[in-house]
Amino acid sequence: MQSVTILGNNSAIPAFGRNPTAQWLQTQEECFLIDCGEGTQLQISKYKLKHSKLTHIFISHLHGDHYFGLIGLLTSMSLLNRAKDLHLHGPAALKEIIQLQLDVAQTKLNYTLHFHPLEKEGTIANTKKIEVSCFKVKHSIDCWGFLFKEKKNNRSILPEKVKSYEIPVTFYEQLQQGEDFVTSKGTIVSNEELTTLASPPKSYAYCADTIYDESLVETIKGVDLLYHEATYLKDLHEKAADRFHSTSIQAASMAKLAKVNQLIIGHFSSKYESIDPFLDEAKEIFENTLLAIEGVCYKF
Amino acid sequence: MQSVTILGNNSAIPAFGRNPTAQWLQTQEECFLIDCGEGTQLQISKYKLKHSKLTHIFISHLHGDHYFGLIGLLTSMSLLNRAKDLHLHGPAALKEIIQLQLDVAQTKLNYTLHFHPLEKEGTIANTKKIEVSCFKVKHSIDCWGFLFKEKKNNRSILPEKVKSYEIPVTFYEQLQQGEDFVTSKGTIVSNEELTTLASPPKSYAYCADTIYDESLVETIKGVDLLYHEATYLKDLHEKAADRFHSTSIQAASMAKLAKVNQLIIGHFSSKYESIDPFLDEAKEIFENTLLAIEGVCYKF
Repeated sequence: MQSVTILGNNSAIPAFGRNPTAQWLQTQEECFLIDCGEGTQLQISKYKLKHSKLTHIFISHLHGDHYFGLIGLLTSMSLLNRAKDLHLHGPAALKEIIQLQLDVAQTKLNYTLHFHPLEKEGTIANTKKIEVSCFKVKHSIDCWGFLFKEKKNNRSILPEKVKSYEIPVTFYEQLQQGEDFVTSKGTIVSNEELTTLASPPKSYAYCADTIYDESLVETIKGVDLLYHEATYLKDLHEKAADRFHSTSIQAASMAKLAKVNQLIIGHFSSKYESIDPFLDEAKEIFENTLLAIEGVCYKF
Repeated sequence: MQSVTILGNNSAIPAFGRNPTAQWLQTQEECFLIDCGEGTQLQISKYKLKHSKLTHIFISHLHGDHYFGLIGLLTSMSLLNRAKDLHLHGPAALKEIIQLQLDVAQTKLNYTLHFHPLEKEGTIANTKKIEVSCFKVKHSIDCWGFLFKEKKNNRSILPEKVKSYEIPVTFYEQLQQGEDFVTSKGTIVSNEELTTLASPPKSYAYCADTIYDESLVETIKGVDLLYHEATYLKDLHEKAADRFHSTSIQAASMAKLAKVNQLIIGHFSSKYESIDPFLDEAKEIFENTLLAIEGVCYKF
């Protein structure tokens, strides 16, 4: 994984220039979109991301601020002659919503859209380098979080060394996986001499919209980056619970309990013009917290 | 009628800062929205219009660039505690699309939404001062144009005159409708002495997405302002016909044939970065042409 770019950080309705939820996850090999509020296709274009590179879209739940921009994005990609398959993961009813809107417009997408309904917890996508799993979160309607885990990275080849031992290119993959090299004369060259240690695999957890729920700790434990919603400031914890949302403090408490490396908070209520107090409150509990700011690319 | 404000002037996909179709019609007594592409709620907010003042929304057809912003606007108005009834006119399937999206979110709108399916040509709304009718246009799917006609305006009372004759307020409505006043002594004061001629009633025709179709001339004849789509420049007239759209020249020819006062052209294809050539071409045929420019309020 390389980075997550925030395309929308607001809840419910757009306000104060903040858009509804969408995030762009950049991995070494492909791009994922997580949630897709109204206007996401414009945000993608504004921040010079390429929707042609998307391979998977993950929709956490069917509140409009998390998916009303999806149908526009899907049809625009078709109008722009996308050919590559696209995988869409979301609650089962999403398929009907999309199909109905395509049918009334007599539209057939140019590309193949594979719909994968979210039905049970566990692995939902398995690419060469990333495993994505979904987990249930507690919200007012059926809602899912997503956990993105890099697979174990290969060791990195030292170009000078492989050159000096005249190791054939065909053996590189075995080298990356840790094998020693045996020369034609039977001499063993140890892998440690030819490669360096792989960087540790990274992980990102997206907790969608959720009430404060410590039962999530086990699932998100130790991730490199945790996104947790913080719809309200701490004084409104009762309102947050009533609406199955969390506060700044609660998001930070989850990060602390789960011993994550870094926390991003977002999904701010439209009642707040300034979001700075969210950071102040969260940092009281968990220092390594960032605000989800639109257009910012968070590397991890 | 007072003015129409363009909220979106592009076709199919957003491009070059241009948004999909939406128009805001301001009348003396209320506000109407015509079509509602993705992002319309943001455009309404950007141009400081008040969606709380909307009484009717008219959706011409179910291509996404004309309605993908509707569900977001409807739900945002509810989140913002709209109480006033809203009338929505559109193709019958629109009701199912909206209801499905409200159902999956377990959302009930705060206000009453009256859905009026467009089924046959004729009057669809009749307010105190405006009559709205719909008419079929020829597009690749079921598509409707809208004609907004002010009712005959009342005569304007001359304040100094009614004061000098001591005419009771209760008689003002009759005065506005042209009646003479009879004093308690039986003297007749002619209406012409007490009022001035009403301004002539205005009319606006919105032709939605349509192939060039002279059979529309009778319907839109003599309107004060005609909106006609011009998706392509004149050299692409074959492409326009293939896709059931019109060119700059064709829009202008309709304005000329229908002897309208003024023409606005819009729904520009995303292939054009500059839209100035549309104006040059249209003016060759019909001088009193304007480009639909986002955020501009066209008074008429």
